[in-house]
Amino acid sequence: MQAEILSIGTELLLGEIVDTNAQYISSRLRDIGVNVYRRITVGDNPERLLAAFEDSLGRADLVIATGGLGPTDDDVTAQCLAKALGRCLRFDQDAWDSIRQSYIRRGRTVDENNQAARKQAQVIDGGFFIPNPVGTAPGQGVKVDGKLVLLLPGPPSEMQAMFENHVVPLITKSFSGLTPIYCVNLNIAGLGESQVGEALADLLRSSNPTVAPYAGSGQVRLRIAAQSADKSRALAMISQVEREVRRRLGHHVYGKDDETLEMAIGKLLSTRGLSLAVAESVTGGLICHRITGVPGSSRYFKMGMVAYHPEVKIASLGIPPEVVYREQAVNPELASGMAESVRLLAGATLGLATTGFAGPDGGTESEPVGTVYIGLSHKKAGNMTERVVFSGSRHRIKLLAAQRALYLLYRFLTEDSKNRR
Amino acid sequence: MQAEILSIGTELLLGEIVDTNAQYISSRLRDIGVNVYRRITVGDNPERLLAAFEDSLGRADLVIATGGLGPTDDDVTAQCLAKALGRCLRFDQDAWDSIRQSYIRRGRTVDENNQAARKQAQVIDGGFFIPNPVGTAPGQGVKVDGKLVLLLPGPPSEMQAMFENHVVPLITKSFSGLTPIYCVNLNIAGLGESQVGEALADLLRSSNPTVAPYAGSGQVRLRIAAQSADKSRALAMISQVEREVRRRLGHHVYGKDDETLEMAIGKLLSTRGLSLAVAESVTGGLICHRITGVPGSSRYFKMGMVAYHPEVKIASLGIPPEVVYREQAVNPELASGMAESVRLLAGATLGLATTGFAGPDGGTESEPVGTVYIGLSHKKAGNMTERVVFSGSRHRIKLLAAQRALYLLYRFLTEDSKNRR
Repeated sequence: MQAEILSIGTELLLGEIVDTNAQYISSRLRDIGVNVYRRITVGDNPERLLAAFEDSLGRADLVIATGGLGPTDDDVTAQCLAKALGRCLRFDQDAWDSIRQSYIRRGRTVDENNQAARKQAQVIDGGFFIPNPVGTAPGQGVKVDGKLVLLLPGPPSEMQAMFENHVVPLITKSFSGLTPIYCVNLNIAGLGESQVGEALADLLRSSNPTVAPYAGSGQVRLRIAAQSADKSRALAMISQVEREVRRRLGHHVYGKDDETLEMAIGKLLSTRGLSLAVAESVTGGLICHRITGVPGSSRYFKMGMVAYHPEVKIASLGIPPEVVYREQAVNPELASGMAESVRLLAGATLGLATTGFAGPDGGTESEPVGTVYIGLSHKKAGNMTERVVFSGSRHRIKLLAAQRALYLLYRFLTEDSKNRR
Repeated sequence: MQAEILSIGTELLLGEIVDTNAQYISSRLRDIGVNVYRRITVGDNPERLLAAFEDSLGRADLVIATGGLGPTDDDVTAQCLAKALGRCLRFDQDAWDSIRQSYIRRGRTVDENNQAARKQAQVIDGGFFIPNPVGTAPGQGVKVDGKLVLLLPGPPSEMQAMFENHVVPLITKSFSGLTPIYCVNLNIAGLGESQVGEALADLLRSSNPTVAPYAGSGQVRLRIAAQSADKSRALAMISQVEREVRRRLGHHVYGKDDETLEMAIGKLLSTRGLSLAVAESVTGGLICHRITGVPGSSRYFKMGMVAYHPEVKIASLGIPPEVVYREQAVNPELASGMAESVRLLAGATLGLATTGFAGPDGGTESEPVGTVYIGLSHKKAGNMTERVVFSGSRHRIKLLAAQRALYLLYRFLTEDSKNRR
């Protein structure tokens, strides 16, 4: 069984927006066991859109198109599909009721004679409408000679809601024998992609489940995917590999799927009743921003200090001037001093600090741009520091330094749980 | 003249990555006056890739393909194009030298008999290679019957460098009569898309230059684009519209192209010798992160305080307990008090503060989740506050609150320049 995806919209061909819909649909089709063989993007041009529908219908069993379902005259997707199939469009009362309800949901009304809105209630003869729980443009679908063609609106939030609620069940019902893929992503910090690759070399060669690493900034995502008609069998295959990965990589695996490092840290701090304070120089507020992005973080995050100016490090954090104004302006004593001071200032169990050179200017011969010291202070375990050197833009150095600092805190919290109270 | 873009890679069809290359190429082709009529995505499958090349060559004058130029056997782009053209591939000494140099640049060497690397030096008979200044895979191109076909590698940084250095000049030389588009983006804060639309209604109807607003989080980007063979004429057309937009929108236009609000603020603070301190509650470090993202910000940014816990607001910022523990926990006195305290603490000219409820929990009937107070304190002008209510996720509320706070600071700095020293 073959699928094709049609992305429709002149704004795509002009490069005004990135086509995230095609990626979303591709990845979800893969999950339910459908192979996508081709994707096509055309503008809102009737002639070329008609040709694209004809081409795709000649090749594929499933065609999913997004875009061009709006109320204005330049939206011609339904008209072109009707022409490609040699069918007409007819006014659909259910679609119209659904459009009117979507207006009411938004506190608006639509006149019974609003021709632009009524245009959106036109469904291909023999087809069916697909309700839009988010916006006003309904989708529609039609089955022809064992082929299924679906039209969805372009705005991603609308398309995704309709895809999950209606399209997935429709495809699964329409095409028998699809073997779905189940997957789990493990999030890994403190190891590079090549180190993960070495540690898991044999697993990466496995074909079912497949195991594949994807590198991000300062972290690696490991996708474990099993294909089976039997869900519990697939999940068992994944679990087995997941256990083996966790056995080999230990605390480097900090989370699953959408779990971030700051969420994992939040969980550890919450369950142990610990609290945190942060003093940032080189990361400039990014660590605090990440930590406070987690709902409920106000329970364990006490305060952050962005100590950018040397005098602030002295006056507000009480770092001795001789440490701040040392020839080596970025040094381990500064990092650990900042971590300890902010911890004491906030009355927190833990203090985390960063100092370094983010560039593009600054740095010295021995401590070039990209040099970062991370300090960690715990009321019983004392102070510790780490030196890391990153390369790249100011933005990248900030990102990597924040990620590394969070990883050190996470590792500290997991390494020796007895001592971390 | 018609162009088509071919994106090649099984990882695209699996939805593992978003195809940003297609967007980049589309937008750059538009800029140089080339119309893209169709984009196609296929996997690294010889049969379907061959068919895609044949289709595109049958329709378009310019075909640009990305991906599938790697050293391994599953990279078959050059082979498929050769087959579609009925030509052979031949070893190209210049391409090989370029590959060897790229290895040397990365501190590696490549053996003269490395067959995988030598595969990348195969160029279509009658074609030419395109050097890759970033990675190892060279691109190539061929002219056939007035048509131009170009193959570029998939990694975006490599593709973009080659596109700018080689592809743009090649296209301009190969196709006469292209009318390029010149454009300027104006960045607008403090106004919604519909307000911008109302204020500029007549300009938005103009066809050359075109004027189009794009809404982002808490800001609007206005694209002014003029198409003309005469560059100075195009730029003059743009300038005229730009002046009119600035006249109507005043200080809402804070920057051009890549200039962010924090860069505009940085410029104003630097040139006037002012300094800034920030106290964040609801934005949790994001304002500091944005300000310190600007190179040179250490000259005017003194300190930031992320005062999350009520006791920190009392102990470190000296806010009276009765303000912090007031029934209305989020209130204007807290915002202005935080702004003033952090300004005094840092010895800065200006203090900026935020407090509010980011959710998902918290909030009261009168101050629901999304309520934000922004405080601004200036050593001569005194304290001022603003109340705003945002909706959406925790992440979105943080983003919008930070953007609004930066906009208020920017507006203060531009409104009455006499008083801001």
